[in-house]
Amino acid sequence: MALKINSAIAVCGGKLLKLSHFSSCTGTDMDVNLYLPKQYYTSIDDSKLIPSVLYLSGLTCTPQNASEKAFWQIQADKFGFAVIFPDTSPRGDGVATDPEGSWDFGLGAGFYVNATEQPYSSHYKMYDYVHKELPEVLAEEFGSKVDFFKNISITGHSMGGFGALSGYLKNINRYKSCSAFAPIVNPSAVPWGQKAFTGYLGSSNKEAWDGYDPTKLIKHVENLNGNKILIHVGSNDPFLEKHLRPHLLQEAAKGTFWEGKIEVNFEDGFDHSYYFISTFVPQHAEFHAKHLGLI
Amino acid sequence: MALKINSAIAVCGGKLLKLSHFSSCTGTDMDVNLYLPKQYYTSIDDSKLIPSVLYLSGLTCTPQNASEKAFWQIQADKFGFAVIFPDTSPRGDGVATDPEGSWDFGLGAGFYVNATEQPYSSHYKMYDYVHKELPEVLAEEFGSKVDFFKNISITGHSMGGFGALSGYLKNINRYKSCSAFAPIVNPSAVPWGQKAFTGYLGSSNKEAWDGYDPTKLIKHVENLNGNKILIHVGSNDPFLEKHLRPHLLQEAAKGTFWEGKIEVNFEDGFDHSYYFISTFVPQHAEFHAKHLGLI
Repeated sequence: MALKINSAIAVCGGKLLKLSHFSSCTGTDMDVNLYLPKQYYTSIDDSKLIPSVLYLSGLTCTPQNASEKAFWQIQADKFGFAVIFPDTSPRGDGVATDPEGSWDFGLGAGFYVNATEQPYSSHYKMYDYVHKELPEVLAEEFGSKVDFFKNISITGHSMGGFGALSGYLKNINRYKSCSAFAPIVNPSAVPWGQKAFTGYLGSSNKEAWDGYDPTKLIKHVENLNGNKILIHVGSNDPFLEKHLRPHLLQEAAKGTFWEGKIEVNFEDGFDHSYYFISTFVPQHAEFHAKHLGLI
Repeated sequence: MALKINSAIAVCGGKLLKLSHFSSCTGTDMDVNLYLPKQYYTSIDDSKLIPSVLYLSGLTCTPQNASEKAFWQIQADKFGFAVIFPDTSPRGDGVATDPEGSWDFGLGAGFYVNATEQPYSSHYKMYDYVHKELPEVLAEEFGSKVDFFKNISITGHSMGGFGALSGYLKNINRYKSCSAFAPIVNPSAVPWGQKAFTGYLGSSNKEAWDGYDPTKLIKHVENLNGNKILIHVGSNDPFLEKHLRPHLLQEAAKGTFWEGKIEVNFEDGFDHSYYFISTFVPQHAEFHAKHLGLI
């Protein structure tokens, strides 16, 4: 569990920490980046913890991609929250990956679920890792000034957008708000999700699939505080029709506590890249800042 | 010369165009990125051309690095200027590189000079390329709305910071303003510069070396409009003492028109990365916007 600070890089008014630690969930060393905003270094009010935003990256990413390209830092400084950038899968010797070597399953594609099928169940416990172990590990080092448990919001991109939606609905009393960039919303019904769920959860385990699928979860989770879920997706996203299909979440919400609360913004001309993400990070930052009590 | 638009990516309020064209200077195809701000797409005042900022990247970079990580786009939209991201050297079959395969000479390390020494003189004509041919090529396609000749400023990072200082001082009536991020200011006196100048210009051609060295040029160039040159450098930059040494430009400016006009900001804790660049891009953008008549 001991956290190693590999580097502390000055960015904007704060620091990006490149961290690593042994994870008992995954049985591997895990990399994670943490942006501590300027308020971490300058605040004189120690009685108020700095809230945090958990950002889950998409297929193939490491903690570096979003740290370098999504440009959360200036927003984190503006509002005063920390940003957590976990890795997208366990890595290292002995970690199984797709036997076909594809980029949409296995290494870099953990889908934020707890695998039940061999050989993946040995290490691919990304659900427990990001929602349970990681906050404990970070709090051990930074918990006296940053809140990783109670005043925290969740967001992510693509596979990580799925991870955010799924993790939010499964922990509705935990996260203050949820947003997503170009998320997979109905993994059970689209190729990326079906491949991942088949590999990690087994082809016939419908209960396990439903237990992670936002379009199923949303029917059983009350939305007591009336929060909306904020989604942006680009109209030129090449994965929109085949893998993302965000309208399916809106349809699933009909007749539930969430009807009318799934805000999907189609953005004309935008694609699936970090150019898209970085453009709309300011809106998502403001959304979360409101729910975190920062504005 | 014909410009090929390989893609037009929506970013912030404008578009990042990934372009390529055959260069008669370098005798190769060249990649270049161009960010056209929202004003390009929305302005109804066609009588006023959109100014531009030429950003010269550092060692090893392609046009992609700064496009993805420096985050000029939001600033370009804010003030209303285009940003040009050229490549750092010719590339392709037949382009000589460092026989030792290092990353600080040859491919990705053209140093924005016109090589006179074989085998580099066949293709390494980056000075003529960025200051003469490239604006002509871009103007052919976008010149009716963007000013690439008269209302243009120049900036860059590291090797590109040298390129910006050198190109500015050699074209004092061309560029409206110059800034640099962690620049090499006295290439004749530091290892990176000495290696490049020896390879491209010959070891004994002092006149050619002086003709590109900002600490020499500054003694012969009048600063008629009284503009300062804006420089930022990180106190934790690992190249500061060996390769950058920005105080040498301030010292060289003593007794010249430029005395007191070289503003070097040492930024505590910052390194040489895009995290450093992106943090200070807003200040450089505002500096250039003033000189481009945008504020």
